[in-house]
Amino acid sequence: MKPFVKVAVFLCLAGIGAVGLLAEQEAPPKRTYTIYPIGWVRQRADKTYLEIDKKYQPGLLGVEQLSEIWVLYWFDRNDTPQKRSILQVHPKGDPNNPIRGVFATRAPVRPNLIALSRCKIRSVKENIIEIDQIDAFPDTPILDLKP
Amino acid sequence: MKPFVKVAVFLCLAGIGAVGLLAEQEAPPKRTYTIYPIGWVRQRADKTYLEIDKKYQPGLLGVEQLSEIWVLYWFDRNDTPQKRSILQVHPKGDPNNPIRGVFATRAPVRPNLIALSRCKIRSVKENIIEIDQIDAFPDTPILDLKP
Repeated sequence: MKPFVKVAVFLCLAGIGAVGLLAEQEAPPKRTYTIYPIGWVRQRADKTYLEIDKKYQPGLLGVEQLSEIWVLYWFDRNDTPQKRSILQVHPKGDPNNPIRGVFATRAPVRPNLIALSRCKIRSVKENIIEIDQIDAFPDTPILDLKP
Repeated sequence: MKPFVKVAVFLCLAGIGAVGLLAEQEAPPKRTYTIYPIGWVRQRADKTYLEIDKKYQPGLLGVEQLSEIWVLYWFDRNDTPQKRSILQVHPKGDPNNPIRGVFATRAPVRPNLIALSRCKIRSVKENIIEIDQIDAFPDTPILDLKP
């Protein structure tokens, strides 16, 4: 093969490679949204608190008038690509329960690890809400509160 | 001031400046989590559907047995730093309503723009759930479904 043919072949192959790379990079990017903790679940001496970050305390105005509240929190212990790819489970982890899609269960593994609990409010003092209880590990990140 | 003193003072001030910059850059990064749509709210000829991405269809197994479902979705029209920084509102946008913290309201502006609605299920066909209605714009991203 003459040298200029070799160069042409090389450039051609390099070009195909580059186009392949480009196509991979240009796959439509997955749309994502960013969320962050507004506070944390705390357990102290048999009591359960929602500790809201001081910077979000103005958002609590009026919460003291509620007897119950929806708490949205993040299953942070399961935040791995593997656990977020699980779409079917035996409810409550019991193999005797027939397989269900995660959207028909409250399983703590699901594509978006958002948990939802209705909690009774005992008191609100500054940025700390005492609640009766919540099915969450201590120091779980809280995402939102709703009446 | 002798030249070498000037140089020493300059280096010293420059050093303080650099340390200040470093301290700012080294502030602990805000913890964030990433979420993404599992589907979209669709409106067609007076009917309302939850169109779940085909790849998440296995997660729907059992949803056809439910009469109602929690739908978690994203207030994507308000996804700006400005709207996510709002912590107090007049509920329902009515200035006659006394100011409340967003966590004591269902306002569509809040730090994490997660919306929550309970919907009646009319039918489930493959990856499409027909519901009675939902207070969401067409093509709103759906984040999660729960029984």
